[in-house]
Amino acid sequence: MELKIGENILITGTNRGIGLGFVEQLVDVPGVKRIFATCRNPTQAYKLLELQKNYPSLHLIKLDVQNDASIDNAFSEIEKLLEGDALNVLINNAGIGEMEGTTIDHPNRESFASHFDVNTTAAVLIGAKFMPLFPKPANKAQPALLINISSLVASLTYCPFIPTKQIAYSLSKAALNHYTRLTSKYLANQGVIVISIHPGRVKTDLSGHYGEITVEESVISMLKIIKDLSQEDSGRFIDLHGKDIPF
Amino acid sequence: MELKIGENILITGTNRGIGLGFVEQLVDVPGVKRIFATCRNPTQAYKLLELQKNYPSLHLIKLDVQNDASIDNAFSEIEKLLEGDALNVLINNAGIGEMEGTTIDHPNRESFASHFDVNTTAAVLIGAKFMPLFPKPANKAQPALLINISSLVASLTYCPFIPTKQIAYSLSKAALNHYTRLTSKYLANQGVIVISIHPGRVKTDLSGHYGEITVEESVISMLKIIKDLSQEDSGRFIDLHGKDIPF
Repeated sequence: MELKIGENILITGTNRGIGLGFVEQLVDVPGVKRIFATCRNPTQAYKLLELQKNYPSLHLIKLDVQNDASIDNAFSEIEKLLEGDALNVLINNAGIGEMEGTTIDHPNRESFASHFDVNTTAAVLIGAKFMPLFPKPANKAQPALLINISSLVASLTYCPFIPTKQIAYSLSKAALNHYTRLTSKYLANQGVIVISIHPGRVKTDLSGHYGEITVEESVISMLKIIKDLSQEDSGRFIDLHGKDIPF
Repeated sequence: MELKIGENILITGTNRGIGLGFVEQLVDVPGVKRIFATCRNPTQAYKLLELQKNYPSLHLIKLDVQNDASIDNAFSEIEKLLEGDALNVLINNAGIGEMEGTTIDHPNRESFASHFDVNTTAAVLIGAKFMPLFPKPANKAQPALLINISSLVASLTYCPFIPTKQIAYSLSKAALNHYTRLTSKYLANQGVIVISIHPGRVKTDLSGHYGEITVEESVISMLKIIKDLSQEDSGRFIDLHGKDIPF
C-alpha cells in the first residue's frame, strides 16, 4: 500500500473486524517499522498469529482495555520494543456494541457502564498512558496521530436518522467525540493531531454483518484520510470521504 | 412565583444546590399540586424537612440514582402518591463533578465510571422508569417535560473555552445531551418535550462556589424558560437566555 504514515503504530482491538483490517493493510505499508497490535487474548488471535509469521514488524501485545494493570503491562512491553523511538500513531479502535439493555425504554445500568468503560473511558486512559511516547518536540514530517474510531450514530445533528435502539453505544461514542475535541485543544501546541473518524457502516461482527462496505474498503479509505491529516484537521469528526460530520 | 408549569413535578438531587433551589421556587408556584423532591438521605435533608412543614405539596422521597432498587422503590411511592394523576415534569438534576482523576493526563477509571453512572446513565434509567407516568395522550395545555440539567462544558462547539480539567464531567454531560436529542426524537409523537439546559455558572458546592449567579437566579431563569417550552423546542440544548448552545 502506497502511503506515508508514522513508523510506529499502536492499534487496540485487533483480533477481528476493523482492528484486524488495519493490521492487514499496515503490514504492507512501506516505512512502517513496528505495528503494535493489541487484543485481550493474543494466543487465540489466529489470524494475527498467522500474519506475524511473514511480517516481523508485527508485534502482538496483550491488552485488555478494561483492565488498568493490563494497560500498564502493555505499555512497558511496547516502550521496550520501541528502543527509544517515538510512537507515531495510536488508533483507539477497541469497542463494543451490545444489543441488550440499551434502548430508551429498557436501559440496563451494567450495559451502559460497559459501553462507557470500553468505548470512552478506555480510550481516555490509553490516550493518557501512551501520549508520553509521542515524538517531542513534534516531528513535522511525521506528526503524531491520535485516532478515535467513532460512529455516525454519535452525531447529534444527524440523529433524526438514528435508531433509538443501542443508545448506550451512541452515547458512549458521543462522549468519545467530546474527548477528541477537548484533547485536540489540549495537545494543539504539541503537534499531535486528534480526530474521530466514522468507519462507515462496515460488515463486522459488531454490526451483525449488516453494512454497506467491507472491512478492507473501510480501512483503506480511513488510511488514505489519516495519511493526509494536518494540524488544522485536529479536533474534527470525519467520514470516509474526509468530510466533516456535524457533532 | 407567577408561572404555569405542570401539576406534578419530580426532581432528583434536591438536598442542596440547584435541586434544592428548584424545590424552594416551586413550592410557591400556584397550580403545582405535588413536588416529589428526591435525594439519597431525606432524613438528613434538613432544609427540605423544614420546608415540608409549611408546604403539604412537598413530598420527600428517598432515591439514590446509582441504585436500581432505590429507583424502583421511589417509583412505587410516587405512583401511589399520584393517585392516578399523571407526572408532568421530570427534572434530571442529580449530578456529580469530582476534581480527582478526571484530567486528560491523569484519568482514573473509577472516577469516569461514577461520572457516567450518575450524570448520564442514571438520567437514562430514571427517564425510562418514569416516562410511563407522563400524560397519555399528551395534554396539550400541560405537555410533559423531561428536563436534563446539563452544562456548557458539554458543548463541543464551545470547547475552545473549556478547561481540560474535569473532563469526565464534560464527557458525561455531552453524552447526556445526546440522550436528550435521541429521546426528543423518540418521544416526539407522544407530546413529551425533552431538553438539556445549562444552569449558568452557579455558586454551588459542586462548583466549589465559583460562579457568576446564585442558585435562586439560575432556577428562576430556568423555570421561566421551562414554562414556555413548546414541542418545537424538544431536543434543544438551551442556555439561561433561552438561546441554543451549539452541541
